[in-house]
Amino acid sequence: MAAKVLADMGGGQSLMAAAWMAHCGVKARVVDKRNAKIYSGQADGLQCRSLEIFDSLGFGDRAWKEANHMIEICMWNPGQDGVIRRSDRIPDTIVGLSRFQQVVLHQGRIERFFLDNIKKHSHDSIKIERGVLPASLRIDESDVDREDAYPVTVELQHLSEEESTPKQQISGSKVADGLFRSSLNHENDEEELIAHGSRAGERETVHAKYVLGCDGARSWTRRQLGFELQGEATDFIWGVMDVIPVTDFPDIRMRCAIHSAENGSLMVIPRENKLVRLYIQLKEVAPDASGRADRSKITPDLIFGAAKKILQPYKLDYEYCDWWTAYQIGQRVGTDFASRNRVFLAGDAVHTHSPKAGQGMNVSMQDTFNLGWKIALVSKGIANPKILSTYADERRQVAQDLIDFDHRFSRLFSGRPAKDVMDAEGVSMEEFKDAFLKGNMFASGLSVKYGASELVAPDASRQSLATGLTVGMRFNSFKVLNQADARPWHFQERLKADGRFRVVLFAGNILEAGQRSRVDKFSARLESEQSFIRRAKSPEAPIDSVIEVLTIHSSRRTDTELLRDFPEILHPFNKSTGWNYDKVFVDDDSYHEGFGDAYKNYGVDKERGCVVAVRPDQYVAWVGDVDDFDGLQNYFEGCLRLNGKTRDL
Amino acid sequence: MAAKVLADMGGGQSLMAAAWMAHCGVKARVVDKRNAKIYSGQADGLQCRSLEIFDSLGFGDRAWKEANHMIEICMWNPGQDGVIRRSDRIPDTIVGLSRFQQVVLHQGRIERFFLDNIKKHSHDSIKIERGVLPASLRIDESDVDREDAYPVTVELQHLSEEESTPKQQISGSKVADGLFRSSLNHENDEEELIAHGSRAGERETVHAKYVLGCDGARSWTRRQLGFELQGEATDFIWGVMDVIPVTDFPDIRMRCAIHSAENGSLMVIPRENKLVRLYIQLKEVAPDASGRADRSKITPDLIFGAAKKILQPYKLDYEYCDWWTAYQIGQRVGTDFASRNRVFLAGDAVHTHSPKAGQGMNVSMQDTFNLGWKIALVSKGIANPKILSTYADERRQVAQDLIDFDHRFSRLFSGRPAKDVMDAEGVSMEEFKDAFLKGNMFASGLSVKYGASELVAPDASRQSLATGLTVGMRFNSFKVLNQADARPWHFQERLKADGRFRVVLFAGNILEAGQRSRVDKFSARLESEQSFIRRAKSPEAPIDSVIEVLTIHSSRRTDTELLRDFPEILHPFNKSTGWNYDKVFVDDDSYHEGFGDAYKNYGVDKERGCVVAVRPDQYVAWVGDVDDFDGLQNYFEGCLRLNGKTRDL
Repeated sequence: MAAKVLADMGGGQSLMAAAWMAHCGVKARVVDKRNAKIYSGQADGLQCRSLEIFDSLGFGDRAWKEANHMIEICMWNPGQDGVIRRSDRIPDTIVGLSRFQQVVLHQGRIERFFLDNIKKHSHDSIKIERGVLPASLRIDESDVDREDAYPVTVELQHLSEEESTPKQQISGSKVADGLFRSSLNHENDEEELIAHGSRAGERETVHAKYVLGCDGARSWTRRQLGFELQGEATDFIWGVMDVIPVTDFPDIRMRCAIHSAENGSLMVIPRENKLVRLYIQLKEVAPDASGRADRSKITPDLIFGAAKKILQPYKLDYEYCDWWTAYQIGQRVGTDFASRNRVFLAGDAVHTHSPKAGQGMNVSMQDTFNLGWKIALVSKGIANPKILSTYADERRQVAQDLIDFDHRFSRLFSGRPAKDVMDAEGVSMEEFKDAFLKGNMFASGLSVKYGASELVAPDASRQSLATGLTVGMRFNSFKVLNQADARPWHFQERLKADGRFRVVLFAGNILEAGQRSRVDKFSARLESEQSFIRRAKSPEAPIDSVIEVLTIHSSRRTDTELLRDFPEILHPFNKSTGWNYDKVFVDDDSYHEGFGDAYKNYGVDKERGCVVAVRPDQYVAWVGDVDDFDGLQNYFEGCLRLNGKTRDL
Repeated sequence: MAAKVLADMGGGQSLMAAAWMAHCGVKARVVDKRNAKIYSGQADGLQCRSLEIFDSLGFGDRAWKEANHMIEICMWNPGQDGVIRRSDRIPDTIVGLSRFQQVVLHQGRIERFFLDNIKKHSHDSIKIERGVLPASLRIDESDVDREDAYPVTVELQHLSEEESTPKQQISGSKVADGLFRSSLNHENDEEELIAHGSRAGERETVHAKYVLGCDGARSWTRRQLGFELQGEATDFIWGVMDVIPVTDFPDIRMRCAIHSAENGSLMVIPRENKLVRLYIQLKEVAPDASGRADRSKITPDLIFGAAKKILQPYKLDYEYCDWWTAYQIGQRVGTDFASRNRVFLAGDAVHTHSPKAGQGMNVSMQDTFNLGWKIALVSKGIANPKILSTYADERRQVAQDLIDFDHRFSRLFSGRPAKDVMDAEGVSMEEFKDAFLKGNMFASGLSVKYGASELVAPDASRQSLATGLTVGMRFNSFKVLNQADARPWHFQERLKADGRFRVVLFAGNILEAGQRSRVDKFSARLESEQSFIRRAKSPEAPIDSVIEVLTIHSSRRTDTELLRDFPEILHPFNKSTGWNYDKVFVDDDSYHEGFGDAYKNYGVDKERGCVVAVRPDQYVAWVGDVDDFDGLQNYFEGCLRLNGKTRDL
């Protein structure tokens, strides 16, 4: 059995990788030692950026529709009398940052969206194989640099149902708990969970070009590679409960950060279906001398009792609990993210932190959203293999930022509020609010900026041509109209995750003769035999197979006509289906959805325009002048194989 | 076999009826003599109102996502030189009318959305039975007034696959055509199509409370009842083709109304997947002395040849044709819409007209959207059976308006354009544009106004309390915020098609003591044992089972608190799930989606508010003062059975 990619399942990140393989037509297998999909209760906040990514895959709307939308954060702190009261309201998502705002949704639903999407785009060929455990992993060092080689050998063991079903902490309990995968578990607990019983199951050997380890904080893949997580646990122990609360607390449907005077802190995360997630500081449970907490002491009653105390004088009760767990806050980052650019680690396998920052699933999924298309394009001969090393560089920085953010936030949130300015041991509520506001930008997922590499042009001298499109950051979205049918689109909707790079030609004022001449010259270069768009694809493939050119102009829509005013290469002709009507857009007022003001928001000159190259994952790769075709050609020569021999997407 | 409702399948209208039964938990069967779902090519414009209705059922987003959005209408007319040129651009949907705009989508997709929705809401119990033909229908007159009776007996015949597959006009053609169901077919053509072959299939007898005939222009059900369609065919013959055009016509992705000087008229309807529907006037085919056209003369070449002539000097070609048909324009309305309020006719069975007005599927689906909930609520003992007679009254007027609109529009569109003001035989292009603009309001589906009845309060004296909510018209939608979590909602999103009536309490300025006292008094009456909301449901059912109370207030969100400022009945308590957080809304600014200005747009006084009763189909039923609880109680006493003995929804 040979496979391009083998992802060991650990939640969203392996499904994200599988989605890329499905969208790019790359053969892949996904194996998961567990036999069931997501367990009850697991939910997570979805960052703006995660929703944008879901939208690029085709299911952002499903998540947006089903999720609970968090609009406002309310901060509660003790007053002079020691009684908690609301001290602040701030928007949960910074206004204007994205077309989405942060929401919360059960992970099982997100898995469902991924599975449907993978099924559709892989034409049923990529399936998640459950109850399958990797038993050995070997990299053939002599083959790692041969592009057509399958240098990674993995032995897989097929488990029985009993072996692959995780056990609940409290047997007989009707409420699902998550302690078996909590950070309070010991290193080998989970191994014991699945390693007992007969090992008589079937075995098979898989030869893979690439292997992804998305197998969690106790990553088997990481241990095979001999890599480690580095960092420390803190003394802070937190409980988590998903309940339908019965309460007179007025902000129970808001996201709340509550510091009580003496009883610890509580975070309220309202969820779908009347559920509310409570993150509850457990002051009565402390780690022992070895730094570990006795998890046997932690029960729903203990956790909920702590929540009740924190929320006094408000009453808090519940009849229905959906799920509960507990964890010890710690921040760790992996020593290495990849081995020989053939085996990669993602998600909790290379960064762990506390869940209540709401970042976990997001950053993990974004790891493989960064990696997946690179593997797909390299394995198809489209991209140069050296782009694979950008994965570790780009994502290690994000992981480090996340850990730093979590460290600061956890300390401020777990600390006792200062009684007054003289109370040096207490946490200043002003400092906490300030950290929260700053954290909000980070928590959107939109502050990520990738450094210079083969994929991100190092020359920032042309950044002034598009001040709203920072090289290395994601391509922001504003509304533009389709020139041919006047329909408004958020421009990001046109940057689908299909593996293609894109060149966005801000054509400026196309009706001005000088500008038209510049656009004509640019288009003539695009048309030429030596053009990167031709040489990135096989000769028989359509012109937009690997790199798509999209145009946004700034003249008035009704003064311009697609066929008359725009060079053919910008709306290519096909003898069976005629002209392409989906590639030229205009920055103009719409009838029903207002004016996106795209040139202004992107910071592009309305007369002279500019050109922007965009990576398949929507990150801005290069900004240049309409005259600088050579610079653009250079960019693509640096990351793609412009030999006209690729297998097309 | 006993069933509440038996709908003979004819497209969207029977599925709409089935959706109501699914949403209201009423047992139903749907039979269709054909064995396949929708044929290639059939597509229709979806009115704003149809999209609002889909949204109330839960799948408006799916239609909106997949459809082609039509934004602009371009009118093309001959200039002085006789050559066509664009004379006007107008928005396809009147700006500000609805949160949706008119779109076009393949009927097969709409059927799919309905089937998924019916499956989900009926818990798989309502299925579409295909290849089943009704053979006889009998109403037991002695039982029609007994509420628990099943007075309609229908014999069903199960067909073989061969019997239930419609034949194509041109055998061997790879392109699907729709001539077999075109108006050019003779009355008995379709009967022959299915009646031949063995009649040896299984038979069964069904006893039903109600039967709906949604069986098209040659409705078998209508003929069993002895009812007729009245009206006339015209001399105008039109062809229809769905092609991927290869053309240099600049507005091929706009909706276009094109009058050529001498070669007839053409309507362009851009569709999804690069397809364009062309409605093409066929001047070379005329009806014979009997008023019928010889359909054997009509071929794709003839139709497309006519289109090419009309579009000169632009070039028009195609390689791919998805579907084609032809029809003779005629307008007919049924003599009767129902028999004994036990057997009902809907859609083409009671109104036929030309397809290019884009109204067909919409008005037909809206027939059963009007009828379905009435049958459901009567069959459950919730509503008084006399409300069933409002179906014919309400929908006959709509059918007549449609026929009048189509008559005028078809005449103007099929006529030769006037050469100048002296050309009395020609059609004035100014008059055409005027008709188009007026027609746009009608074509949105939002101009429907139902007359006074048990379901629409006759007293219009209180209309001034809510000038933007006309009694008898659909409840318009503006954005409001949920009081508890600040999330913006289009208010119409809260008016789901679940069979419930709603009382919308515009609570006004709840922080003003006098107003608070009025709201308290209204709420106390709602709470009382005699209140219509209690008496409309069984004692054990939740308070909002049949009638839901939703509140919109106009004080500032952050100045008010749900539990402190609003009487309990407005956010009812449940001991398992706590307070209800989904019933109180505020007209205030949002962080991310602007200010809906709902009070202003609904024309309601921000201080004193008002009360509005809304039917399950979102039509405004009653408007009154916050003090006029008795008037509201009277409204519900007129249409519901307030005996506390109903079977709940």
